Amino acid sequence: MSQINEMIQRQLQHRTIREFKDTSIPREILEALMEVARRTATSNGTQQFSIIRVTDSSIKKEIAEVCNQEYVGRAPELLIFIADQFRNNKIIKEKGAETENASDMDRFFQGFTDACLAAQNVVNASESMDLGVVFLGSILNDSAKICKILKLPKLTFPVVGLGIGYSNQNPQLKPRFDNRLRIFENSYTIFDNYLEEMKEYDEEMTSYFDLRNANRRIDCFSDQVVSKISNSLPNRQDILKVIQEQGFKTERCSS
Amino acid sequence: MSQINEMIQRQLQHRTIREFKDTSIPREILEALMEVARRTATSNGTQQFSIIRVTDSSIKKEIAEVCNQEYVGRAPELLIFIADQFRNNKIIKEKGAETENASDMDRFFQGFTDACLAAQNVVNASESMDLGVVFLGSILNDSAKICKILKLPKLTFPVVGLGIGYSNQNPQLKPRFDNRLRIFENSYTIFDNYLEEMKEYDEEMTSYFDLRNANRRIDCFSDQVVSKISNSLPNRQDILKVIQEQGFKTERCSS
Repeated sequence: MSQINEMIQRQLQHRTIREFKDTSIPREILEALMEVARRTATSNGTQQFSIIRVTDSSIKKEIAEVCNQEYVGRAPELLIFIADQFRNNKIIKEKGAETENASDMDRFFQGFTDACLAAQNVVNASESMDLGVVFLGSILNDSAKICKILKLPKLTFPVVGLGIGYSNQNPQLKPRFDNRLRIFENSYTIFDNYLEEMKEYDEEMTSYFDLRNANRRIDCFSDQVVSKISNSLPNRQDILKVIQEQGFKTERCSS
Repeated sequence: MSQINEMIQRQLQHRTIREFKDTSIPREILEALMEVARRTATSNGTQQFSIIRVTDSSIKKEIAEVCNQEYVGRAPELLIFIADQFRNNKIIKEKGAETENASDMDRFFQGFTDACLAAQNVVNASESMDLGVVFLGSILNDSAKICKILKLPKLTFPVVGLGIGYSNQNPQLKPRFDNRLRIFENSYTIFDNYLEEMKEYDEEMTSYFDLRNANRRIDCFSDQVVSKISNSLPNRQDILKVIQEQGFKTERCSS
């Protein structure tokens, strides 16, 4: 691939960084990251996300407990990306207008998408400045608790977290299965036997060392799929209930 | 901001490109983009997204109709990002294992997030190679129809589309409201009066020319919020119903 520029080289080398140097991120770098978040594409131009920057160490620890990942409390920067319909809903009220749609699931998903896009954009900006990053989907282990910790008003919802800092580790690049199993032309392609198709990949995965379990080789991919999906946490499964408690109208789903 | 490198400069200049030159994207560039998608962070490492590359011009047109955007049919590359639990669910079955969690809403949201992150990563890679991009949230105008057009099996769902090509237009950078209304420290900040806080921004927005309505100035932001959210399409509001029809378990939401 002759077209690979520096940016793409970095993207192809993306690895999760969980251990950071004890160095804070300079203010001007953080401002650049937040400016990148601000300029990220948003659904319909309506800017339906917000970010909570967590600097209070006791709040960091509370979040680390939800994540069940101690290192989250030590991340130099901890950013929580929020789907936000509160702000636009308030604007509508201040305008004296009224609309039921402001809290429907379409709006929820638009905010959720905006938050994800901003998070990935910030990740790319971070990595371009030699920062390391960990995505924290684990904030959804208990989304209701995160809402409480960050005092999120109705019509907002936590989507994903980011820990950012200067890397203090050098993890191996994690193997990924081939794109022929993931990228299709014009319609979805179903394979007869994924275990057969993934045989080599499954083998490759066992040669990968996870720094979180540095003293043993890890399971092959297909075994990981079984164990990771079986071990889902009950609070995670209740995500729609919390979305509903946050004021979004989910009723139509059971009709 | 002295820290701005070339990558970040591009991110800060992101604009939606809707009109492309009649030049196709060279194969090696497309391959680099797909490799970037493959290397994007995924929830738990479980790689829960897929991409449908739409090359058939009649399928492109069908999608353009759902999007209600004629130019979608003319995009040199059209990629639809899919939340995908079908693949891992099949792997679990082939392993002779069984788990209810494989189709729960936690899994749905993990796939949805994976698809969003991959899309933004591909956007950054595209822009780094001087390509222009349009996000297509409009595929959700009728998500059931998109499922049908792309023959999406149960446990998959279309998340967002991308049109990519060499830009044939030069849109103005769209104004965005200030980060003090979007980025907060340690807890969510509620403002008493957003119209007051956004006064300058509202004014700035009316000086922006939208190339889609080149012959008139556009509404201020707060008026746009009211009109855009009021004019939501009925099929968009039913998104949870389609998610349910695609086999995901949404029952818990109404409990």
